[in-house]
Amino acid sequence: MEKLLNVRVAILTEEGFEEVELTSPKEALEKAGARVEIISTKTGKIKAWDKTNWGIEIKVDKALADVKIEDYDALVLPGGVMNPDKLRLNKDAVKFAGDFLMSGKPLAAICHGPQTLIETGMLEGRKMTSFPSLKTDLTNAGAKWADKEMVQDDNLITSRKPADLPAFNKALIGALTLQHHQ
Amino acid sequence: MEKLLNVRVAILTEEGFEEVELTSPKEALEKAGARVEIISTKTGKIKAWDKTNWGIEIKVDKALADVKIEDYDALVLPGGVMNPDKLRLNKDAVKFAGDFLMSGKPLAAICHGPQTLIETGMLEGRKMTSFPSLKTDLTNAGAKWADKEMVQDDNLITSRKPADLPAFNKALIGALTLQHHQ
Repeated sequence: MEKLLNVRVAILTEEGFEEVELTSPKEALEKAGARVEIISTKTGKIKAWDKTNWGIEIKVDKALADVKIEDYDALVLPGGVMNPDKLRLNKDAVKFAGDFLMSGKPLAAICHGPQTLIETGMLEGRKMTSFPSLKTDLTNAGAKWADKEMVQDDNLITSRKPADLPAFNKALIGALTLQHHQ
Repeated sequence: MEKLLNVRVAILTEEGFEEVELTSPKEALEKAGARVEIISTKTGKIKAWDKTNWGIEIKVDKALADVKIEDYDALVLPGGVMNPDKLRLNKDAVKFAGDFLMSGKPLAAICHGPQTLIETGMLEGRKMTSFPSLKTDLTNAGAKWADKEMVQDDNLITSRKPADLPAFNKALIGALTLQHHQ
């Protein structure tokens, strides 16, 4: 596989993200040559959630107020039940995600990550998956929900849970490779 | 205030309920003379969430499979971001909540508690409040959402967060008192 040199990916998250849903895509993207930055509503450190308890702390690279979508080639929204519950209440985070969705650049959301996308009001007709507890909310928001390890609808890539990470990472890197070499 | 003698209230919850959103209504109801039972999908003990970390463990009085709505005069759904995320995936829990909603008996849900009610498909036109992160999901489910400490729509009583508990408990006990003396 050719290296994703000069490819920059934003991971937008809040405290309580599911640890492996951030570390696994980050590692896979960096291994493919991309530069990954952790974006959150505030700088400093934020805590992961690791299955049944608090996990590692990670450093936020940049505050949302200091970045623009032109700085990045793709956006990743990790899950964790607490993270998007906070993120979806932040207007700037919702606008950032919505602008990314409209930009055509890859947007990959896993588990509870798609909750933030509900707030964009842009899910009408989009094919998606998510953690099963979001099925009704995504359907009510207009999405066409399917129980699959990975659903790709144009630039929107979604998965259900940590076990789907290999398919999720592969689809994201595939979309970036295609975009990078066009 | 006259005692709520012979009044039985079910609190339906899963691990990760917001501690005070269970203990506060329970205490207020018991002080008013009602008998309160903790119902969950399994018996044993379940852990509370207390603001930013795991809290107390409480004993489940009865498993959902062993109760029927005729056993209770009211239902309470506490919040906590993890509890209804699990509960809404359990068909029996959703049916129990839906049957209660249709029964006309008081159903009081706070914070993230109303998420379980989305799955009943019975929220069209119901006036409600909730933790603000649920506003869009409840609106998309047909509810008329308002940012108030307590919203009462016939038998449905909802509140936003722990700070609203005094208004929430008062409305629930008021509804039970009215029902009990008719």
